[in-house]
Amino acid sequence: MSTCRYSRLMTDDILAFAQRIFDNQPFSRYLGARLEGVEDGVVRIQLALRPELLQQHGFVHGGVLSYLADNALTFAGGIALGGEALTSEFKINYLRPARGVLLTTRAWPISTSRRQSVCTCEVSCTSEDGESTIVAIAQGTIVTVS
Amino acid sequence: MSTCRYSRLMTDDILAFAQRIFDNQPFSRYLGARLEGVEDGVVRIQLALRPELLQQHGFVHGGVLSYLADNALTFAGGIALGGEALTSEFKINYLRPARGVLLTTRAWPISTSRRQSVCTCEVSCTSEDGESTIVAIAQGTIVTVS
Amino acid sequence: MSTCRYSRLMTDDILAFAQRIFDNQPFSRYLGARLEGVEDGVVRIQLALRPELLQQHGFVHGGVLSYLADNALTFAGGIALGGEALTSEFKINYLRPARGVLLTTRAWPISTSRRQSVCTCEVSCTSEDGESTIVAIAQGTIVTVS
Amino acid sequence: MSTCRYSRLMTDDILAFAQRIFDNQPFSRYLGARLEGVEDGVVRIQLALRPELLQQHGFVHGGVLSYLADNALTFAGGIALGGEALTSEFKINYLRPARGVLLTTRAWPISTSRRQSVCTCEVSCTSEDGESTIVAIAQGTIVTVS
Repeated sequence: MSTCRYSRLMTDDILAFAQRIFDNQPFSRYLGARLEGVEDGVVRIQLALRPELLQQHGFVHGGVLSYLADNALTFAGGIALGGEALTSEFKINYLRPARGVLLTTRAWPISTSRRQSVCTCEVSCTSEDGESTIVAIAQGTIVTVS
Repeated sequence: MSTCRYSRLMTDDILAFAQRIFDNQPFSRYLGARLEGVEDGVVRIQLALRPELLQQHGFVHGGVLSYLADNALTFAGGIALGGEALTSEFKINYLRPARGVLLTTRAWPISTSRRQSVCTCEVSCTSEDGESTIVAIAQGTIVTVS
Repeated sequence: MSTCRYSRLMTDDILAFAQRIFDNQPFSRYLGARLEGVEDGVVRIQLALRPELLQQHGFVHGGVLSYLADNALTFAGGIALGGEALTSEFKINYLRPARGVLLTTRAWPISTSRRQSVCTCEVSCTSEDGESTIVAIAQGTIVTVS
Repeated sequence: MSTCRYSRLMTDDILAFAQRIFDNQPFSRYLGARLEGVEDGVVRIQLALRPELLQQHGFVHGGVLSYLADNALTFAGGIALGGEALTSEFKINYLRPARGVLLTTRAWPISTSRRQSVCTCEVSCTSEDGESTIVAIAQGTIVTVS
């Protein structure tokens, strides 16, 4: 649904820019999230699971999934807008309990104007067997930082 | 907007039940959140701010606010439903950058049926001067764990 | 939760301004909705029920409730912003089936900056007996028309 | 993103079932919407534009778009769930003003369990020149009617 508007060269620059911002987010470092790539406008953020990220039944805490959605939406929107941005609002649906070893979030822009980008996002969970299942979807508005 | 349906005795029991669940959430402990109270169906969760919870500009990371909203909604809904529950979906609007020393989240049920409760939530941030400002609002659906 | 920022005089001017816009909405006239009042920043829109507004089981169609939420949010935000505005996004939770004679929507701003207002909204349904029940809540972002 | 789980035969049955429900919705008839097809789980609803469906600037009223999103989500979820269903909640982002001759809404399930289906939806507007532009996206929860 997203359209590629980025050449390889642009993508490299954008990735470096996004990576610099990501590395300066104490909360992302605290959780252990990593910005893994930006390809054709699709941002990919991953987070290796560990006990601190779970809730009372051993599943991933919803707050971890909402952090991933929020952050992936921000970066997808910021890249589409061509600069620093922040999530103004989003909505998340949890689809099933997440249990496994790795969370992968992909987010991409649906429609971008001068000052805002509406983006969508999927969070998947990879089990120990390497099977990946979608566990949440999100949709939100990202705005430029003035 | 919420209606009190709990006597003092019930509230004590419910608070103990909710506290037990909360204490068994590794992610809530990792962030340092505390279930501070349940009064007339309103759940109050607090989180003292520290550098690990911030984003690249020194404001609270949106993911921290969305964790608080998610978790407060879950507990408000669970208490209204009278048992363990989980957030099925929610939507959050960030209102302004959050900077200060303490986050306080209050969530309460608007409408509860046998299997689900629709709840609403406010997140406020207290500055060093003790001034409190609302920084996010959220609305979501909480369902019973079957 | 909303704060009164309007004197009686301002409210009269604002109501006249809002009424003019409302009266120019063909869709609102087609459905039969009426802007009933603006008081202390709270907008009230009503819609008398008739067979055309129902779904297959005789309840109000969800699209009627979402129209009311969308429109009441727009007017609440526009009044808070002091000019013409549009709903950028919103989220609605349906709480129970709506059946009766009259729908009443109340919307008010939670937080307003120079260019946008985050508002919240309740839709109630009045039965033939005159009993009123909340049937939906909504939350959304209203932005100025540039 | 949606997966085809329907054979041609099933699709015919489902379409007939969905068509029957759709035809019994007074509000859909009042607006002039038509259930145009169900293919591989994707529901398509169309609505020819006419003056009654507009707002004060000659664009489609947001409430018309939210009706389309609500209804397409309901049918996509109902078909995925295999029976009558209703939209429990949804969120819509308006992407740009809609002006033209025809609205087309496509909705499909992302994840379906026994009692609920989380679906996503796009609304497009076709101009007089036959050009189609996406004007809104939505995401919501559809539940079985018990």
